[in-house]
Parts: sequence; C-alpha cells; structure tokens
Amino acid sequence: MTDTVSRRHHVVVIGSGFGGLFAAKRLKRAGVDVTMISRTTHHLFQPLLYQVATGILSEGEIAPAAREVLRRRKYLEILLGDVTDIDLDAHTVTSVAGDASTVTPYDSLIVAAGATTSYFGHDEFAANAPGLKSVDDALELRARILAAFEYAELEADEKARDEWLTFAVVGAGATGVEMAGQISELAHRTLVKEFRRIDTRRTRIVLVDALDDVLGTFGTKLSAGAARQLEKMGVEVWLSERVVDVDDHSITVEDRSGARTRLPARTVVWAAGVQASSLTKTLAEQSGAELDRGGRVKVQPDCTLPGHPDVFVIGDMMSLNDYPGVAQVAMQQGKYAADAIRGRLRHKPEPKPFHYFDKGSMATISRFRAVASIGPFRFGGFIAWVLWLIVHIMYLVGFKNRVTTVLHWAVSFIGRGRAQRAVSDRLMISRSTPSTTSQPS
Amino acid sequence: MTDTVSRRHHVVVIGSGFGGLFAAKRLKRAGVDVTMISRTTHHLFQPLLYQVATGILSEGEIAPAAREVLRRRKYLEILLGDVTDIDLDAHTVTSVAGDASTVTPYDSLIVAAGATTSYFGHDEFAANAPGLKSVDDALELRARILAAFEYAELEADEKARDEWLTFAVVGAGATGVEMAGQISELAHRTLVKEFRRIDTRRTRIVLVDALDDVLGTFGTKLSAGAARQLEKMGVEVWLSERVVDVDDHSITVEDRSGARTRLPARTVVWAAGVQASSLTKTLAEQSGAELDRGGRVKVQPDCTLPGHPDVFVIGDMMSLNDYPGVAQVAMQQGKYAADAIRGRLRHKPEPKPFHYFDKGSMATISRFRAVASIGPFRFGGFIAWVLWLIVHIMYLVGFKNRVTTVLHWAVSFIGRGRAQRAVSDRLMISRSTPSTTSQPS
Repeated sequence: MTDTVSRRHHVVVIGSGFGGLFAAKRLKRAGVDVTMISRTTHHLFQPLLYQVATGILSEGEIAPAAREVLRRRKYLEILLGDVTDIDLDAHTVTSVAGDASTVTPYDSLIVAAGATTSYFGHDEFAANAPGLKSVDDALELRARILAAFEYAELEADEKARDEWLTFAVVGAGATGVEMAGQISELAHRTLVKEFRRIDTRRTRIVLVDALDDVLGTFGTKLSAGAARQLEKMGVEVWLSERVVDVDDHSITVEDRSGARTRLPARTVVWAAGVQASSLTKTLAEQSGAELDRGGRVKVQPDCTLPGHPDVFVIGDMMSLNDYPGVAQVAMQQGKYAADAIRGRLRHKPEPKPFHYFDKGSMATISRFRAVASIGPFRFGGFIAWVLWLIVHIMYLVGFKNRVTTVLHWAVSFIGRGRAQRAVSDRLMISRSTPSTTSQPS
Repeated sequence: MTDTVSRRHHVVVIGSGFGGLFAAKRLKRAGVDVTMISRTTHHLFQPLLYQVATGILSEGEIAPAAREVLRRRKYLEILLGDVTDIDLDAHTVTSVAGDASTVTPYDSLIVAAGATTSYFGHDEFAANAPGLKSVDDALELRARILAAFEYAELEADEKARDEWLTFAVVGAGATGVEMAGQISELAHRTLVKEFRRIDTRRTRIVLVDALDDVLGTFGTKLSAGAARQLEKMGVEVWLSERVVDVDDHSITVEDRSGARTRLPARTVVWAAGVQASSLTKTLAEQSGAELDRGGRVKVQPDCTLPGHPDVFVIGDMMSLNDYPGVAQVAMQQGKYAADAIRGRLRHKPEPKPFHYFDKGSMATISRFRAVASIGPFRFGGFIAWVLWLIVHIMYLVGFKNRVTTVLHWAVSFIGRGRAQRAVSDRLMISRSTPSTTSQPS
C-alpha cells in the first residue's frame, strides 16, 4: 500500500455518509488511491432512521457495511477512525479509534463528516431528549418509546401514567413529523390490543416548533394540510413555541409573548436542529474561512476551502447558496468534488461552480399520506406517498436489504405489525420511573 | 382487572422464554387469569442467537415482542419486571422495573426464568468474554467480532495485529461450535475481499473445551466428524483444556497434567456453561428444595417445588431425570404445568409424572453442514443441514419474521454476504486497542 500511495495521487475522504460514499465511488478509474476514514463501519441511510426508531426496520437494513458496499473497489481502503485533527499545511489527517491513533497524508481531501444534533446551546437537554442522527440514537429512541408504554402499564397513579403516555417531539421538519406520525401509528394501531390496564389510544403526542409552520419548506398550503392530517391522527401541533427547558419529566415551551407552558412528558424526541461536525472549526482556524450559525464552513463556489483548492468541504458541513442540508446536495457535491480532482489530474480547466439540481423533497406523515415538492409542483396525500415509496425503494437499490425492507413495509403499512421491536434488555428494564410504588391487582 | 383477578384462579408465569410462552398459551380457555412477568419485552428464540451475533439475522427476527405474539389472549396480561422476590407463604411475586416495584399475588405459579451464562466461579471473566444468552449479548459480540477486524486493519505491529485476528471460543457445545463456524465463515468468505492491509483468511479461531469431545452429546462418531469439519474450516480444536484465566489480551488454558498454555486473543466468546436464574435460591430457601451444581431446583416428578404443589419450576431452572437444558424440555414442561393447573381446577386426578419426549437435537457446523441426533439415528453433513433448515423454519412459523429470515439465510448461505452488520457506533469506535501507535501509509 505504502509504495502505491507514494506513487499515485492520494485522496482522503472523511465520512461514509452520502457525500463521502458518492465521492469515493465516483473516483473509480480516476487513477487515484482513496482512503475513506469514518467513525462508523456502515453507510447510514439517514432518511429512514425514524423507521428504525419506531420498530419498522432493523438497523442493518438502513446501515449496510461500507466495506461491503465498496468491496470491489481495489483503489479504495477504509479506515475506522474519529478524525481529531486536520493539518492543512502538513496535508495530514489524524484519526483515533480506541487507543489507536493514525496519521494519514493526503494530496486531495474531501471532508464529508456531516452534522450532529444541535440543542442550540442547551446540550444539557440531550440526556432527556435524544436526537435522531445515528444508529445508536435510533435504538435508544426505540427502547424509550416502547418502554414508555410498558411503564405506563405498571403505573397505578393516573397522573404518572399520563406522563408516560405523553410524547413530545421537538421540531416540525420532516424527521419530527415522521416521528410524531409513527408514534401515533404505534399508539393507535400497533399496540392497541396489547395492553390490559392502559388504553394506548389515550396517548398524547405533541409536536412542537418555534416556527409558524409544519414542514415549512413545503409551502403554506401543504403545511396547513400536513398539520390538519397530524391533528386527525391525534397529534397536537404547537407552533411558534420555543423549547426553553427539558427535564426527565417534562418540557417547557415559551411563546413569542414570553408566556411559558410546562408539558409533563416522560419521552422527548429532539428533531429540532443540526450542527455541522466540529471539524469545521479546525478548518476555519487554519484557513480563516467563515462559519455560519449552524457551524457550517462557507465554501468557494467550487466547494473548496478558501485558499485551499485541494480541500473540498461538502454536504451538511458546508454553506453555499443556502443549499439545504439534504442527502441530494451531499451526493451531488461528492460527485462534483471527485470530478474536479479527476479533471485537475488530467489538466482539464477548472470545473464550473457547483450547482445543486433540486430533484425535489418528500416527507411521509402517516402510512398512505405524504407531501412532495418537485420543481414547481407541490402536492400531498396518497399519490405523494406512492411516489415516496417508489423513490425510497429506488434509492435502496444497491443495498442488500431492499427486499426485506419492502416486506417490513408491507407488514407495517398494510398490516398493523412492527417486525423490529426488539430492544436492549438493559435499556428497557432500567428505564427510570416515578418513585411512587404501584401495587397492581 | 382487579375484580376479575379476585374472582378467577390467577396464574402467574415468570419468564417469556420457551417455557413461559408455551405455558401461557396453553392456559387458553382454562378459566384462569394469567399474568406473565418478564424482564424483557420479547420472546427470544435463543437457538439462533449466534446468527445475530455474526450478522446474519437482526435481533427483531429472533425476538418478536411477547405482547404481539400473545396479543389476542384476553385472559393474559404481561408486566415488564425483574422478579426480585417470591413469597411462597404470602403467595406473592415482587418484580421491579426501573424504580417501579410491583407485587402480584398468585394462586398458581409457574417459574420459568431460565438461565444465565456461568463462568464457574470466575465472574471476572465476563468483561473480556461475553456469553451469548440475550439480545444485548449478541449485539455486544457482533460489535466485538466485527471491530476486531477493523482494529487489525489499523494495527501496524504484526504481533498486535495477530492478537486482533485471533478469536477464542470457550465451550464446544452447539453454541460454541456454531460461533466458531460462523466466525470462520466471516473470515474466509464474507470479509475476504473487504480489507486492504490484512488477509482475513489468516484469522485464527480456537475452540476450547475442558471435555474430550466436540458436541459430546451427539456421540463419538459425529463428534469426531464435527471436529474434522471444523479443522477443515480453519478452526483449531483444543480439547481437554480448562480455561483458567481470561484478560483483555489473552486466555490461559490448563490441561489435565496441569500444563498451562497462554493464547493471545483480543476476542473471546464464552459458550461454556449456564447457571439457573438466582430465583432458584429464593425458592430453595423457603421450600428446602435441593439445588444441583448448576443451581437448578430438584423438582418433584410433576415439576412442582417439594411441599408446594401450586408452584411449578420448569425449563433451565429445574433438575429432573437429567433432562437437558434445551428448548424442547421447557416447551413440554410449560404445556404440562398448564394442563396440570387446568386439571386441578376441574378436579381431575393428578397428572402422570412429567416425561420428556426427545424429538432429537441438531447443531450446524457451517453452511450446508450440520449434525443431527434423532431417536436412534445419528447423522451429519448436508442432509442433517437441510433437516436443520426445515425444522428451524417450522419453528419460526408464527413469528412475523420467518420470511425475512429465510431471505437472510439465502443471502448468507448461498451468497457470501451478511445483511445485519450494523453495530453500535459507540461500541465500535471505543473498542480498546494496544497502546502502540500505528502510522499507516
């Protein structure tokens, strides 16, 4: 390997998400060696993470091993590692896994480390309000959501029981809406005949957002429709309410007038914001590049770091033309960066500035209902849902699990069941409950 | 619920394993109310746990929610809880979940809490040598096994790399043989093209047992065949070797002459022994019943606790006629106990002593190879494997995931892949490695 690297142009890709994966694939036959460094061993299909959190899909179905996806690519090696430093002068990347520290030199660098959950300066909320960005997050939420019904069943005190049966979802973007919708499906369909002491249909689901609209990016008409649909499903939609506190028994929100409301709830899902990987700070310090409010690096029109044409920053880590933090942008920028590197090696003229081709966006609200925004077209309901289904099956093509995914969807959308309700025994049995002791029967 | 309970005979079932599940189902139309208390929310199909640990199946496929399996049974309620006390005089069961303590009175009690991993008095081995009894165990082992290859790839020092590429499996019963065989399949088929710096075919897998045979219960002829087959797969079989020490870098074994051998290995799987749930102590103290070496309660011929005809102890927790600790015994005793209770309520004569009908046993060694022992017949190879396949698909019938399971088997047995390699990011990235720093490329 070592000799090879010294002979051929060496591209280091940080991250195995959409940006990193598409960049690495696109570098095929570019005459380069590629080292992908990732803190996880899988490529995560994040848009379906909410289905893992609500027991529809297994983690393996949306997180195939990156090594398996990229197995045949001899020009590529993958290293497990959490990147702790990038030295733009020395052209090296330092990564750590366990106690093993690795320094990898690069000729070109593609930084695609993505984003994490943002608590807007209130990281103390994290313990009681997990986000939904990783496999661990999804399995943690799956355990908390299913445990809440178990503990409600054990709870003799009605007030305490209601706290267990109240779910707060913070953030009314696609993820928040999908989580609220799926918790409602669990309560009203999947679990409805399974408990004896509680009526899961009495579950209270509150979707909170500081803005004035649900799924704001889809336009007011669809937003209003989505809100109506959610309310039909028993989801309370609280808009223009900012979350100012989260503890293990409640959340507190504040409206524009400063009036506060405390909502007793034992389960809180945080789908409110994302924050670029902290690697953007490392890059900014050394290059003088600016960061935006979300911690994203303001990149050049060609997605490079100012003053460092050999360093591309893509996906959720970069800020350019207000492009949204979605998979499509990351994929297209991954390909763009790969093509730019290939072009340079062949002494082609520099590429045109990156332009995002928006193929549209979609969000599911419930089974059979979604909203879609494609070019000038904005529509909702069953047709949007069928489109959502087709597009996601298409995107899953290439993943070994698309077949089982479709089967699990049939189980959950046509049937009432959930195939993936297994959770960590430890997380389940140790979920903390009110100190009041119940003495059923 | 409360009134109902006070009116009808109330059966409490402890455990949602094979014994508890079959007892609870069998009590249908017995005119009783049943409360099942379990520390997990799923019914675990333990015989396939090794396939979750090695990335073939998802945890959900072998651990469907007990509430879903038993949904339609109105006479039955399920309570999450770790049983901390049984009071035979007061006829009550105390269970704890989180901070919630629940006391449940019973008229008849079926104790089927199963068994846990036994380290034969060396519980300090547990941290470095996880057992394989729960979903958590399987996911922990999946992460450790897959992480070992990742850390080997990162390791510049050859000796340290070899430690990562050495796997010790302690216990040459069905689980140990299946784990060793599957780790070999991973190293020689699944992962073979995925790494650049290591050759996974150089993986060393050592199967250790204190006894003289692999799969001893299948008879010397099949044992010898199984050992040969394992060695063909690159598994070293160390027999008549007792494990006397396990640390985070090695295991130490001792032969009958007292000679010790240290095997450097970073990954150890403990499949050596089981130990009945500690509830057997509670039962023994109050009833004076004897416990055997494995902590099992010596029960009456009708599976009841001596002096307590209203308390049945079944499955891995009981000792009777040297019946083995297998699913079949637990299932049959669950039905037997349910029928005994039903019979008494109808004033029928006491049932005949429990007799175990041995339908035979099977163990897989590799894809396409298994051993089977059915009545007088003992045979191995492909036919035994086909039989294994049919029987397990049959047993999975009733579980929603049998379809996807068969698909995942096709992926793994016909193909080379593993559909379920996703692991906890946290477990993967924090797996400890030698302090020597590597500087690849």
